[in-house]
Amino acid sequence: MIHINENFLTLEKNYLFIEIAKRIKTYMAANPEKPIIRMGIGDVTLPIAPAAVEAMKKAADELGVKETFRGYEDSGAGYDFLRNAVSGYYKKLGADVSPDDIRINDGAKSDCGNIVDIFGNDNTVMLTDPSYPVYVDSNRMSGRNILFADSNEENGFAAMPDNNVHADIIYLCSPNNPTGSAYTRDQLKEWVDYAQENEAVIIFDSAYEAFISEPDVPRSIYCIEGAKKCAIEMCSLSKTAGFTGVRCGYTVIPGELTVKTDSGDVIKLADIWARRQGTKFNGVSYPVQRAAEAVFSDEGLAQIRVNIDYYRRNAMLIADTLTELGIDFTGGKNSPYIWLKCPHDMESWEFFDYLLNEIQVVGTPGAGFGRNGKNWFRLTAFNSYENTSEAMDRFKKLFI
Amino acid sequence: MIHINENFLTLEKNYLFIEIAKRIKTYMAANPEKPIIRMGIGDVTLPIAPAAVEAMKKAADELGVKETFRGYEDSGAGYDFLRNAVSGYYKKLGADVSPDDIRINDGAKSDCGNIVDIFGNDNTVMLTDPSYPVYVDSNRMSGRNILFADSNEENGFAAMPDNNVHADIIYLCSPNNPTGSAYTRDQLKEWVDYAQENEAVIIFDSAYEAFISEPDVPRSIYCIEGAKKCAIEMCSLSKTAGFTGVRCGYTVIPGELTVKTDSGDVIKLADIWARRQGTKFNGVSYPVQRAAEAVFSDEGLAQIRVNIDYYRRNAMLIADTLTELGIDFTGGKNSPYIWLKCPHDMESWEFFDYLLNEIQVVGTPGAGFGRNGKNWFRLTAFNSYENTSEAMDRFKKLFI
Repeated sequence: MIHINENFLTLEKNYLFIEIAKRIKTYMAANPEKPIIRMGIGDVTLPIAPAAVEAMKKAADELGVKETFRGYEDSGAGYDFLRNAVSGYYKKLGADVSPDDIRINDGAKSDCGNIVDIFGNDNTVMLTDPSYPVYVDSNRMSGRNILFADSNEENGFAAMPDNNVHADIIYLCSPNNPTGSAYTRDQLKEWVDYAQENEAVIIFDSAYEAFISEPDVPRSIYCIEGAKKCAIEMCSLSKTAGFTGVRCGYTVIPGELTVKTDSGDVIKLADIWARRQGTKFNGVSYPVQRAAEAVFSDEGLAQIRVNIDYYRRNAMLIADTLTELGIDFTGGKNSPYIWLKCPHDMESWEFFDYLLNEIQVVGTPGAGFGRNGKNWFRLTAFNSYENTSEAMDRFKKLFI
Repeated sequence: MIHINENFLTLEKNYLFIEIAKRIKTYMAANPEKPIIRMGIGDVTLPIAPAAVEAMKKAADELGVKETFRGYEDSGAGYDFLRNAVSGYYKKLGADVSPDDIRINDGAKSDCGNIVDIFGNDNTVMLTDPSYPVYVDSNRMSGRNILFADSNEENGFAAMPDNNVHADIIYLCSPNNPTGSAYTRDQLKEWVDYAQENEAVIIFDSAYEAFISEPDVPRSIYCIEGAKKCAIEMCSLSKTAGFTGVRCGYTVIPGELTVKTDSGDVIKLADIWARRQGTKFNGVSYPVQRAAEAVFSDEGLAQIRVNIDYYRRNAMLIADTLTELGIDFTGGKNSPYIWLKCPHDMESWEFFDYLLNEIQVVGTPGAGFGRNGKNWFRLTAFNSYENTSEAMDRFKKLFI
């Protein structure tokens, strides 16, 4: 008789955003006349850059003509034109990343979930808590032991390594989802040192790097010395360029990152990942890769900058309002996320229902991201300026 | 210290097509003046349908405008417009498949590789041999026990179930890659009965269904009674509509397909897969989904039919030539693949080198697909008619 992977039964039944959607639906059915402002799910709202649209259309035309038709991509790792463009972008961020070390994907979530395949199940995984649920669930699905490093009020929601605790795989997300906090250069260096001492690998999620505004916060882990020997970086155009519906991202595994097998051989981790991807992935849609290439052109970068600045203005408005109301929070400065302490000692789901019922503003309960989120709440800057302003006006009426 | 998944070290080092590419490169470097005809890798060469190009461009435009912009797809399972279109297509094939049971993906290879995640590693896997290497490698990566059912000259390269052997997961591909053979209705019924008796699940790869020409060969396993209780079907637009560079496919897990957990609960397999995909996949590019929808329109279906007929004419030409030369083969009739017995008792890699050196025709050595392919060789019908004719002329000169 066939057996399922029973690890799936240990997962929380409902994915966070499904539960949120359900509660909104119930509320809307009962209160159809009350307009809801959504500041919950981290999805963008502004259109993609004109340069990307044009590039995608041109590529679609190419596929419709025999002479320019393209089928399978040879390597499945991404076309050279895009890997070179990503490498050039890294240069602008102050990191030296070879095109050979970059693989293009259909969005960071796929690689972030699938990367667990290449590691043995006996590794100890360390996550900062709260964290993006994919890190937890993808490791639970393979039955791994998970340790949590607390990100909390005391450390400014920026967990730091504890040299008394050993881990083999460490997930870091900076700027952080959900807390919006971002590691400084010195803090990231501590993590890189810790990884090297523990012969561990850091999986560094830099999905929100485009929102960094402070010069002391690196936009790539490869801005840190030693990181190439111990860190994988995953990034996406979802937040950088509004590609949540286009689907494109990239994963970097430096050639310098080697691991020892049980029999003592030293092998490149990138080779194992290439073997995994060669078997279970066939590359990203050609028109999507052309659109992504266009994002990294001078024209494209200027166009996406306008959108990022727009979201930043929203983030500042939220931050200023919370400051005015005396509500504690992190984020907003280097991130589209604001992580606030629920007023009146409320728990986060209680606060979710309170905001929905009282002022029809939807955010994300911190409890959905881990135990340290129990009394915290995430708002995002991705709605329109008008809606964000309206939401903040409602906040002022409710909390002053 | 971090440990890799050591199962990766048990895999063949080079993926079949990488080795082929290497040998071609070496030959071309030494013989730059000799034009090679590629009938090896199963990639299409004709452009995608005009209806698909237009739909993709229109969708790209939509993403560039605030009012029609789309971000994350809510479920990640595919937009209703496409799931409905696929369901409508199934109706034309004589199978009743609900849109609710369909998930859209970025090509069958991803799901085919990733599906192993939802099953326990203690299951016994059965593959027909020869087979598509992804079935073998994805199961080896998770350390599973694999049994092989021989497809050979005796059974017309159509392995049938043996009631003395038990399996929990069975991979079937019909029309078959690499052998081009296709199961009749009665043969598939035997497999479905076997699966039900063994409480097993069939993973049915129907990637080549559009090439079926014989009425007695079902184009979906759901044409068979009982299949909904025991079979997953995976298909792709890669061969149906030339989408190898566009990347779109679909997986069907019927709601009727339930499994028992260790604690005796009965759950829908589709729910486990949805949880897997919800964690490790974020849906297919919106413009790609619109292009796929257009393929299934009346206009699109008429346009892709022209291409499939073109490849079929190539397949017939190859089949006729081999018949004329007295070379044994299967396939061609319901498949873009022709699987031939290497003349002069040659082994398949030897024959590969022989063809490359003597007549500069590239095919795929059968040994790359399993032990029963040792003396067999795959040719594909995806090149141009002119090149296919030229290759067959060269065959005639060499083998007459």
